[in-house]
Amino acid sequence: MKYRDLLNGVSDVELLSMGEGTTPLVKSRRIGFSLGLSNLYFKLESLNPTGSYKDRFGALAISGLLATNAKFCLATSSGNTGASLAAYSALAGIPCHIVVVDGAPAGKLKQMQAYGAHLWMLRDFGIDESVTQRAFEGLQRMAIDFKTSVQISAFAYSPFGMQGVRSIAYEIAEEQPGVQHVFVPAGGGGLTLAVVQGFKQWSDQNSNFQMPQVHCVQPEGNDTIASSLRNGAPRCQAIPVSTTSISGLQVPSVIDGDQVLKTCSLHGGNGYVVTDHDVLELQRQLALSEGIFCEPAAAVALAGAHKALQNAEIKNDDLVVCLVTGHGFKDPKATEKIIEGNPLKHIVKLEELKSNLNESN
Amino acid sequence: MKYRDLLNGVSDVELLSMGEGTTPLVKSRRIGFSLGLSNLYFKLESLNPTGSYKDRFGALAISGLLATNAKFCLATSSGNTGASLAAYSALAGIPCHIVVVDGAPAGKLKQMQAYGAHLWMLRDFGIDESVTQRAFEGLQRMAIDFKTSVQISAFAYSPFGMQGVRSIAYEIAEEQPGVQHVFVPAGGGGLTLAVVQGFKQWSDQNSNFQMPQVHCVQPEGNDTIASSLRNGAPRCQAIPVSTTSISGLQVPSVIDGDQVLKTCSLHGGNGYVVTDHDVLELQRQLALSEGIFCEPAAAVALAGAHKALQNAEIKNDDLVVCLVTGHGFKDPKATEKIIEGNPLKHIVKLEELKSNLNESN
Repeated sequence: MKYRDLLNGVSDVELLSMGEGTTPLVKSRRIGFSLGLSNLYFKLESLNPTGSYKDRFGALAISGLLATNAKFCLATSSGNTGASLAAYSALAGIPCHIVVVDGAPAGKLKQMQAYGAHLWMLRDFGIDESVTQRAFEGLQRMAIDFKTSVQISAFAYSPFGMQGVRSIAYEIAEEQPGVQHVFVPAGGGGLTLAVVQGFKQWSDQNSNFQMPQVHCVQPEGNDTIASSLRNGAPRCQAIPVSTTSISGLQVPSVIDGDQVLKTCSLHGGNGYVVTDHDVLELQRQLALSEGIFCEPAAAVALAGAHKALQNAEIKNDDLVVCLVTGHGFKDPKATEKIIEGNPLKHIVKLEELKSNLNESN
Repeated sequence: MKYRDLLNGVSDVELLSMGEGTTPLVKSRRIGFSLGLSNLYFKLESLNPTGSYKDRFGALAISGLLATNAKFCLATSSGNTGASLAAYSALAGIPCHIVVVDGAPAGKLKQMQAYGAHLWMLRDFGIDESVTQRAFEGLQRMAIDFKTSVQISAFAYSPFGMQGVRSIAYEIAEEQPGVQHVFVPAGGGGLTLAVVQGFKQWSDQNSNFQMPQVHCVQPEGNDTIASSLRNGAPRCQAIPVSTTSISGLQVPSVIDGDQVLKTCSLHGGNGYVVTDHDVLELQRQLALSEGIFCEPAAAVALAGAHKALQNAEIKNDDLVVCLVTGHGFKDPKATEKIIEGNPLKHIVKLEELKSNLNESN
């Protein structure tokens, strides 16, 4: 691992790797200009081994389990975290048991199953707040009994693994040291927190490096952190139920939110609330006019950057990075929406194609 | 592009990029040892932007079209080539028309459609040899009329784009200069040819570098090149119809095969024929015991390496690289087979999980 000396407690741990991290940071060629941003970059976390940034967490989380001689991984997930933990458990050669959100999409479950994970769909888990809370507590007790620890991708639960996520910031800082704004999608806020912490570490070690502003973007149906950050509130607000349709960002509890408030605001970071409609439209545009096929949650950062520009809170030529957190293949249902209106055409002769080209050219 | 000076005719071409290439070369942690190979590496081409090595082709192919002011891309595909050309056409801002194989899997078509490509499914194309041949010829005439060129991922048709694929070899040579054997899956042979050419270029420019042996692996239902290479035959053999089930390797015509014969044999490369059964079993094992979720065609190279070891044509501790050409998400039907026997379990209380853990630990 390239940035090993920036991580705590890993000096005597065998670090598992299957090529996570060192993802491309690509300059927008078209969509930035159409939105009015001439210096826009995408960090393609979707190109990690299991298709999301969670591999930076999974690699370290399972390495940590191996180092403590845990016999298996015990985790909770609605999708991307589970795929990653399942993959690194396979690499480590230990079983992986995942309690999954009731009603989690089959596509995401199948990826976990392909890596051999054992999936347990607990009734009302992730839906009913009290069932969910009792399950978290029960799992933590169970983990102690079996000499393992529960893996949940949040600093509040799994700080050892979450340090791996900070490397996103190291890579951006190293490749684009003039970065001014970084937009990050948030559910429970762990990713945002990791990114700010990573830039802070980098800045502490590189005196010429100027901290960018890290902005937290949430869909309006899951505004637990963003408005609190914008309004300078002292604490985040849990919501009774998440109403966003954006898979992966339905996290009604605060989790890492209060830490996000504290650290983001120290360095000028702001909160942005965006609509599901705008997110889905930008997800479509990323595929159609930039060639970036991502899941809806991965377009949330761009929706935030667009809003910041509309609010005149960033300038046209500011160096802006948006995190693209997960690949389009994660959410086949969302893909069906993108391709509506672009049907496959059945033809019997090539001349039918030629006529069409003649008309359109 | 990192290796720009190794490519021909690109000095005044704007090179499109969305982070293709520079894929991880990871050392096997478990499956190598279980097969008897202690120095086995996987080149994860599955982590390219659209999920396959074809992005190295697509990036250059569409850059070339832009440089000639072509108004659109005209191509043929059964899957991965089309996804890549569609993505780079989106990035370039030009329409992409793809004539697709009759009966091509919906999953692969949807990825092309997500990038906005126009798909034309021509009756019997890719099935009936004469329909296919006439379509190729018709498309080439049509391309001239419209001042574009047909993009097919083979040196015989699209040599400009195919040079991009050689960078796989540059990267392996740079990272593991002691590489001894590289196993490559083949349909029409373009990938194998690109890899040998790439190592040859590298060796010409780096006098200390020793050319590895590049081996061509094919499923037995599409043995157009492999047996000819093994037997020292002067030419490849087209087959009336491909009978392998491995999507992407059903290419009954010779295409780049004769060039593969010539160049592979010059440097000690051999041919390996493997069964679909062995390929699918290794695809499953790659996910379950190495955490690498790939499409079936991407396990063909490993099946070849295993056979080479069984034949005593490579040694246990030889430095062996297998190309993993495409991601598991490309072929949802193959995934269903992997997960058979690992059902999702519905539970009402966490105690049901605990009982299971008590029994199994």
